[in-house]
Amino acid sequence: MTGVSRRRLFGMTGAGVAIAGTAAGTGYFAASRPDETAATVPFRGPHQAGITTPAQDRMHFVAFDVTTTDRAELAALLRDWTQAAERMTAGLEAIENGAVGGRTEAPPGDTGEALDLPASALTLTIGFGPSLFDGRFGLGDRRPAALLDLPHFPADNLDPARSSGDLCVQACANDPQVAVHAVRNLARIGFGKVAVRWSQLGFGRTSTTSRAQSTPRNLFGFKDGTNNLKAEDTAELDRHVWVQPGDGPEWMSGGTYLVARRIRMHIETWDRTSLAEQEAIVGRAKGSGAPNGAAEEFDPVDLQARSPDGEFRIAADAHIRLAAPATHGGVRMLRRGYNFTDGSDGLGRLDAGLFFVCFNRDPRTQFVPVQRMLSKKDAMMEYLEHTGSAIFACPPGVPPGGHWGDSLFG
Amino acid sequence: MTGVSRRRLFGMTGAGVAIAGTAAGTGYFAASRPDETAATVPFRGPHQAGITTPAQDRMHFVAFDVTTTDRAELAALLRDWTQAAERMTAGLEAIENGAVGGRTEAPPGDTGEALDLPASALTLTIGFGPSLFDGRFGLGDRRPAALLDLPHFPADNLDPARSSGDLCVQACANDPQVAVHAVRNLARIGFGKVAVRWSQLGFGRTSTTSRAQSTPRNLFGFKDGTNNLKAEDTAELDRHVWVQPGDGPEWMSGGTYLVARRIRMHIETWDRTSLAEQEAIVGRAKGSGAPNGAAEEFDPVDLQARSPDGEFRIAADAHIRLAAPATHGGVRMLRRGYNFTDGSDGLGRLDAGLFFVCFNRDPRTQFVPVQRMLSKKDAMMEYLEHTGSAIFACPPGVPPGGHWGDSLFG
Repeated sequence: MTGVSRRRLFGMTGAGVAIAGTAAGTGYFAASRPDETAATVPFRGPHQAGITTPAQDRMHFVAFDVTTTDRAELAALLRDWTQAAERMTAGLEAIENGAVGGRTEAPPGDTGEALDLPASALTLTIGFGPSLFDGRFGLGDRRPAALLDLPHFPADNLDPARSSGDLCVQACANDPQVAVHAVRNLARIGFGKVAVRWSQLGFGRTSTTSRAQSTPRNLFGFKDGTNNLKAEDTAELDRHVWVQPGDGPEWMSGGTYLVARRIRMHIETWDRTSLAEQEAIVGRAKGSGAPNGAAEEFDPVDLQARSPDGEFRIAADAHIRLAAPATHGGVRMLRRGYNFTDGSDGLGRLDAGLFFVCFNRDPRTQFVPVQRMLSKKDAMMEYLEHTGSAIFACPPGVPPGGHWGDSLFG
Repeated sequence: MTGVSRRRLFGMTGAGVAIAGTAAGTGYFAASRPDETAATVPFRGPHQAGITTPAQDRMHFVAFDVTTTDRAELAALLRDWTQAAERMTAGLEAIENGAVGGRTEAPPGDTGEALDLPASALTLTIGFGPSLFDGRFGLGDRRPAALLDLPHFPADNLDPARSSGDLCVQACANDPQVAVHAVRNLARIGFGKVAVRWSQLGFGRTSTTSRAQSTPRNLFGFKDGTNNLKAEDTAELDRHVWVQPGDGPEWMSGGTYLVARRIRMHIETWDRTSLAEQEAIVGRAKGSGAPNGAAEEFDPVDLQARSPDGEFRIAADAHIRLAAPATHGGVRMLRRGYNFTDGSDGLGRLDAGLFFVCFNRDPRTQFVPVQRMLSKKDAMMEYLEHTGSAIFACPPGVPPGGHWGDSLFG
């Protein structure tokens, strides 16, 4: 791969690269952590980036319908996408000299809005939806059984225009303009072969995927993801996230299954609920994040602990009890969701919530049974409405010289 | 005002405070600018904050319908909002001990999702829409003539659900979660008196309002706002932005008029246009931002310059010619817009564009004639669709002890 950094083209012009610097003079900073904002995340490796990568601050997730019916054209697109994706995650234009260095009589090969911006830890993660295996492309016998059609869950209110898709790309970055630029350029490269089915911007991470990160808060105001799987838990990741040889079709070994759920949170109703009720529903203290009955955020979740009056400290219908690995025979998932706000709903309320993304080795034994229980029993469900849903098979990482479609197309 | 910083409550937990630090080790940073990410912007002053404040990276803009018909209740709400706004812009909870320090039997007085986050340069700017003066609140004789009902412009395709409003609050911050938290808490405080009419998230600034800032890019990939008014141009601001004594009703002296336009950009069509055509339409080089025929971004815009073949260097229908002060008798505006992406449009395209915000002393002689000319003649209009529109009177700044509604309600 050749080419220079987008930013070197025009010098240090600064937009979006405001991050390197010293602590502000306001007295607010008592400490600092290493600046991850501008980092470059390697594109190639045994697994795709963007899964155990420390969760970036922002996300743009896109699902595509494939509009071509030509298998070779689809495979070629995946090759073209891979080249562009590798370049963009390195902080380069989608193609060399793409934005302003080409023939002026031709449309630019890069749309330009990230020209002055660093890589911003951009990752691009591809997934294949169940509908890609419907026979149009001769892939019917390659569909993994684990790539199931998700069942209907109680309280689902799914909008088809926010659900499903033949392909997905999850773009995560510390600068949203870099993530949006990447999705847009992939859509541009795919013009005539794919069409955007839906996309979702997430403004703030709700997950922690590395012990180097602190726990962020969701729009219920609670810390979210305290006991998430972490990149450092490699044995647990092999057990719960990465598809292992023998699990199913070999082309998915080293891959994982992504489930995305757009969860509208009825924050106005939540905000009129007492603090005690909120903490009972979640099962944690709102301030510290400590499990009910414990003192600190990372104290063990003791599902048996009872108060002097004999009641469970963590209520029988508390969210963290019903989602706990112990409630599901040890099942865990890697969560990687984002807070969203998409304007208002026409009824005087913000359209806000959590774009839930999880990665699992087999959703049939992980996401589906956990969500089935949550959707039936979780006290939090009163405040939630699932408005979008999708599942994708994320192939393994791309080796040197390889492309996104190699494992699937062989 | 009492209370401690939100962040001191729980220590330096880091989510969203990732910004202070040293330059990344990737070799990307050749320079740095002072870190403005966590700064606190003073709430009170002769003018409202959020207008000439160096444009923050993110925005959440909300318009409200007033649902109460009681003038005293509305005035009281503006007082309550002022207290909460001042606290939140200082990095505090909306009310003291609001999130977790109150009675557990009561709903929290702060929704909590910004508990661990610094002020992030949050500003909250209020505006009053034309409909607020319709007689419900005895304000009919206080409506400024400059707060006109905007005329219809060619190519307007306005969605009433994204337009107008009795009140607006523009929340800008360097962390989107801080901006969303502020809007949400104002909506919560206003429950039963106001309802959210529409809201818009902007993920990246497109304007520069201080000479300390570099010029960002819009979703056409071009630098935007090169010749914007700057905070340092105080005489120009008095001439073009701040309402002066004698301009109209005295309660608006020191205030300004905000015009917001949600401009959908047909980026897919734009992306299939040649670089030469794009640069002709804008009137600038895509890379450097230099005016056509000039060498550097900040070179003067010479509207008379011609190429050897006698053609204007900056085309007769170029955007920067038709928007130039020289084309409108010296008229200027302070622009403060943001890029947005709101999912997709159901036709395979991203719903993306520019949320245009400008501040002017009198929109009858500034925004309206400029937009009238642009909407009729600007070559860029082929790629634009105005889908939302609103105008608000932003009162002057709040003096010590005063409230947002003081100047209006007297």
